[in-house]
Amino acid sequence: MKIAIIGTGIVGRTIASKLAELNHEVMMGTRNVSDKLASTVKDNYGNPPFNEWLKVNSKLKLGTFTESAAFGELVINATNGGNSVTALILAGKKNLVGKVLVDIANPLDFSNGMPPSLLSGLNNTYSLAEEIQKTFPETMVVKTLNTMWCGLMVNPKLVGKGDHINFICGNDAEAKTSVKEILNQFGWQDKNIMDIGDITGARATESVLPIWLRVSGVLKGGAFNFKIVQ
Amino acid sequence: MKIAIIGTGIVGRTIASKLAELNHEVMMGTRNVSDKLASTVKDNYGNPPFNEWLKVNSKLKLGTFTESAAFGELVINATNGGNSVTALILAGKKNLVGKVLVDIANPLDFSNGMPPSLLSGLNNTYSLAEEIQKTFPETMVVKTLNTMWCGLMVNPKLVGKGDHINFICGNDAEAKTSVKEILNQFGWQDKNIMDIGDITGARATESVLPIWLRVSGVLKGGAFNFKIVQ
Repeated sequence: MKIAIIGTGIVGRTIASKLAELNHEVMMGTRNVSDKLASTVKDNYGNPPFNEWLKVNSKLKLGTFTESAAFGELVINATNGGNSVTALILAGKKNLVGKVLVDIANPLDFSNGMPPSLLSGLNNTYSLAEEIQKTFPETMVVKTLNTMWCGLMVNPKLVGKGDHINFICGNDAEAKTSVKEILNQFGWQDKNIMDIGDITGARATESVLPIWLRVSGVLKGGAFNFKIVQ
Repeated sequence: MKIAIIGTGIVGRTIASKLAELNHEVMMGTRNVSDKLASTVKDNYGNPPFNEWLKVNSKLKLGTFTESAAFGELVINATNGGNSVTALILAGKKNLVGKVLVDIANPLDFSNGMPPSLLSGLNNTYSLAEEIQKTFPETMVVKTLNTMWCGLMVNPKLVGKGDHINFICGNDAEAKTSVKEILNQFGWQDKNIMDIGDITGARATESVLPIWLRVSGVLKGGAFNFKIVQ
């Protein structure tokens, strides 16, 4: 499948290289391609410049937000949550019409120090995924994978034999089914993909971030997930 | 130990009867004792009137908010989160000075239908537990047990052999230690009591409610909890 990944940070890179490994055709989208390729700066987490990373992931294409969205039959939003709507508008509404958009971002607000809170206006009674769905009403937004470290998104077996939870929500049942197929390819078992309903469920999954961040602080890392025990 | 429970709903009753079973002396606090004893109305969840329940829990005392708080060496807030501060003010600041107050309530807002959101002004960058700590600066507020169904609070072994998570936070280390002893008596193993730091951690644990409520909707019940897998 042709898949667009909007965003070139560590989350986008992790998803992109896994999808390429699964023989999907992937184009990553960035604001300015030549700037991105020229950059020699590590990111805030010490990850190498994009250009270096791309050399060892040579099956991947890089384009503008617009080129990437036009290329993808399915689009994944892996931008910083605070920039997601802006980036997706740059990608072009017409390039998203009728497509499934998988939103894995979180609307984190780092302006008041660590741990971040959720952005004002995008929490509790509203969510980033709803804002995206509202901005692109002819796109089928599916929220998933946003409640864990990116290493686990594409390789759930890294912890607890892969037996832990991933939530999914969205207004379109068919769109959720197609996203579940990709989740299965990543290693998620159906019993661990919990459909919590329409896109308003993103209020709940984005609200997992505060406790995720606290637990991550205690465990000094992100290689954990939540499991539901009954 | 003499323990006050502020609130006579299902959560307060569940905690109270368990503490009595553990041979603690318990006084439950209510706004108006004679009204509470005279009531013949079931609650919203179909639980029997307090008076009927008290007949089969005859070791328990009932008093006003004030009498209960004065009685308790330790105080548990088991009121509806939206009424907690009002109830605790009625209990009397002087009756709470120097005491540990265990806050197990959640600031749920049912005014916009189901599932409830968190109350405006008590979410994301603030929390009910912080509001209580701010209102009663000479009381040691400890937040715990608010991320699960009350049946599990006092009997974690009901699911997953008791091997699932309970968060605790608060500004006073000694207060947290004394609350952990009660949690141990309830059946919580130390390895499953995660200290996430000071009382601002309540922003995170109260934010668990949205996903808890969604999962509860999917599973059609509350007999589940989250476990952290690494």
